[in-house]
Amino acid sequence: MRTNRLEAFSDGVLAIIITVMVLEMKVPHGVDLYSLKPVLPVFLSYILSFVYIGIYWNNHHHMLYAAQHVNGKVLWANMHLLFWLSLIPFVSGWMGENDFDTWPVALYGIVLLMAGTAYYILSRTLVSLHGKESTIAIALGKDQKGKISLEIYALAIGLCFVNPRISLGLYSTVAAIWLIPDTRIEKRIVSSQTKE
Amino acid sequence: MRTNRLEAFSDGVLAIIITVMVLEMKVPHGVDLYSLKPVLPVFLSYILSFVYIGIYWNNHHHMLYAAQHVNGKVLWANMHLLFWLSLIPFVSGWMGENDFDTWPVALYGIVLLMAGTAYYILSRTLVSLHGKESTIAIALGKDQKGKISLEIYALAIGLCFVNPRISLGLYSTVAAIWLIPDTRIEKRIVSSQTKE
Amino acid sequence: MRTNRLEAFSDGVLAIIITVMVLEMKVPHGVDLYSLKPVLPVFLSYILSFVYIGIYWNNHHHMLYAAQHVNGKVLWANMHLLFWLSLIPFVSGWMGENDFDTWPVALYGIVLLMAGTAYYILSRTLVSLHGKESTIAIALGKDQKGKISLEIYALAIGLCFVNPRISLGLYSTVAAIWLIPDTRIEKRIVSSQTKE
Amino acid sequence: MRTNRLEAFSDGVLAIIITVMVLEMKVPHGVDLYSLKPVLPVFLSYILSFVYIGIYWNNHHHMLYAAQHVNGKVLWANMHLLFWLSLIPFVSGWMGENDFDTWPVALYGIVLLMAGTAYYILSRTLVSLHGKESTIAIALGKDQKGKISLEIYALAIGLCFVNPRISLGLYSTVAAIWLIPDTRIEKRIVSSQTKE
Repeated sequence: MRTNRLEAFSDGVLAIIITVMVLEMKVPHGVDLYSLKPVLPVFLSYILSFVYIGIYWNNHHHMLYAAQHVNGKVLWANMHLLFWLSLIPFVSGWMGENDFDTWPVALYGIVLLMAGTAYYILSRTLVSLHGKESTIAIALGKDQKGKISLEIYALAIGLCFVNPRISLGLYSTVAAIWLIPDTRIEKRIVSSQTKE
Repeated sequence: MRTNRLEAFSDGVLAIIITVMVLEMKVPHGVDLYSLKPVLPVFLSYILSFVYIGIYWNNHHHMLYAAQHVNGKVLWANMHLLFWLSLIPFVSGWMGENDFDTWPVALYGIVLLMAGTAYYILSRTLVSLHGKESTIAIALGKDQKGKISLEIYALAIGLCFVNPRISLGLYSTVAAIWLIPDTRIEKRIVSSQTKE
Repeated sequence: MRTNRLEAFSDGVLAIIITVMVLEMKVPHGVDLYSLKPVLPVFLSYILSFVYIGIYWNNHHHMLYAAQHVNGKVLWANMHLLFWLSLIPFVSGWMGENDFDTWPVALYGIVLLMAGTAYYILSRTLVSLHGKESTIAIALGKDQKGKISLEIYALAIGLCFVNPRISLGLYSTVAAIWLIPDTRIEKRIVSSQTKE
Repeated sequence: MRTNRLEAFSDGVLAIIITVMVLEMKVPHGVDLYSLKPVLPVFLSYILSFVYIGIYWNNHHHMLYAAQHVNGKVLWANMHLLFWLSLIPFVSGWMGENDFDTWPVALYGIVLLMAGTAYYILSRTLVSLHGKESTIAIALGKDQKGKISLEIYALAIGLCFVNPRISLGLYSTVAAIWLIPDTRIEKRIVSSQTKE
């Protein structure tokens, strides 16, 4: 079964998630700059979530590019990932509207942790479908970055109850780690094409 | 006429339906865990609806993969299916906000029943276009799963007036039946490709 | 320039328009059937608009299937069509929430008239690009159905001020005319493929 | 890496942005023409924003048509462009609901300036990937139109504090400049195809 319709559906869902978050930024009633002030934390929360969805789209794009085919298990592992990502507008809105208070920041981290876990499950499902010698298996390797991200999320959720600002710093750190493009897969594809 | 644009449009509509449902989960005003309590039934309702839309997308994907071409009748049978699915965010929201009360649960079942019927009509329209000897006709077979689902929906709507929790159990049962991937079509495609 | 990205963008916009209309159906606060009563006219309005967007998607699909290529003028003629169609959720909501009162029904007709005109301009732009001997030109022919629709819309807008129910009957009549699939293009493609 | 999934994702986001803006036009409660009056500035703001998103889609379509491949940098330059465009519904709604007051008009201009800058960065990233002798590099040339647009936006933001109507006139002027289709790339593709 081809990967193209899975990509199209995921692109659609991610495109909507990223745009729907803007609707959480309610148009203020005043006309001066000061009336934008309550929108500011929602805007900052939007930037963080936009970057995260962008990272997921980017990595998803890379991973499925290396995949040859999909099966029913992959479709549901992908749906599971989209489920957790679809909750980001909700937790992002709650976090922004409450000025990065403890519980909203913790819940944001929990959704990030679940989405990261779902991404990991998706990558393992693809690897087990393609075999250990496949391009995608070698490209993903031991997925150190993925595992470290999950550990940082777990740490950040705990540290929320000390100071939510530490957690926000950790979420941003993970985003920064991923913003560096995932060159593993690109390199592997290039090298496997060179060999042929 | 090719199937690709029909798939693209359906993917778009299903991707939007699945994401728009999140908007029914209104961001609460409080900052503690307790303020999430009224969102909980809406969230449970969202999970059920997310799984259903996922099942429809998955089965739609499989069915159209086996189809060779479409005509005007198929386009409208598909539009009819999308119409009923597009009502799911509304009934899902009504059901969740009223804590799974009798009428909302019954209406949810009616929409499921209509969507199931529309899917059945679509599958028959595709079969009559491709002929009884086609891959898609043999793959779909007598569609026992589809027929049983419709019967369970009808039963669940009636039992709502006894206890809506029974109906919810039945809706979840149908979802579980379908979560097992529809291997009929996959097997048929593989075997028909082997013969060639 | 290929037609595929134009189709993809139009599919996206139409898929969103058709789904966003559901959001005009606000989830009622009551739990009995009676609480659905105020939603009923919005629902009827939704059905009419859903059918119209479905017709436009269907005809757009057929028309671009017959087109070989597009240019800048076609892109903008298409954008102009999407603009008027994008107003349908607004006028549909206004009409439904006011129980099909005079002005909302008239404005609905004006938007239909403008969308119909935009579709006509798009078809002429495609014909002038492909030439009078092209498949698309012969398939569209004199476009009697398109012209009659515009006349009925104009008539319906005027008759609103006599009785808006007459106008609704006329809008439904035009929808019924178009629900009969546009076999002109299908026939022409088949016959042109046979000749080759 | 192919351009098609980048195009699909961008099409999705732009299609949603353009449609979500309609939701800023709240359905009025009255039933006469007079009740539409407060919607009028929001509608005018919607037209301007619709045209701008249309221009971006159009130019994006042309530019990526000339591109052969993309890399991680291009993906993020594109995401950066989508970020600024995703803010248009918010600033468009604020501007429309406040009858084109000073600060909302200025903020609208700032978002246009940032989106224009992001588009410029995307075009340079594509050129540096393809090389100075590539079709895309020669087609884009010195990009006078892009640079002039940025200067006019900056001027318009300043002139807001004299009279916001001047700024609106300048925004419309830039839109008019771009509505003239970008024939540079079309010509270049045609001539490069002729040479082959």
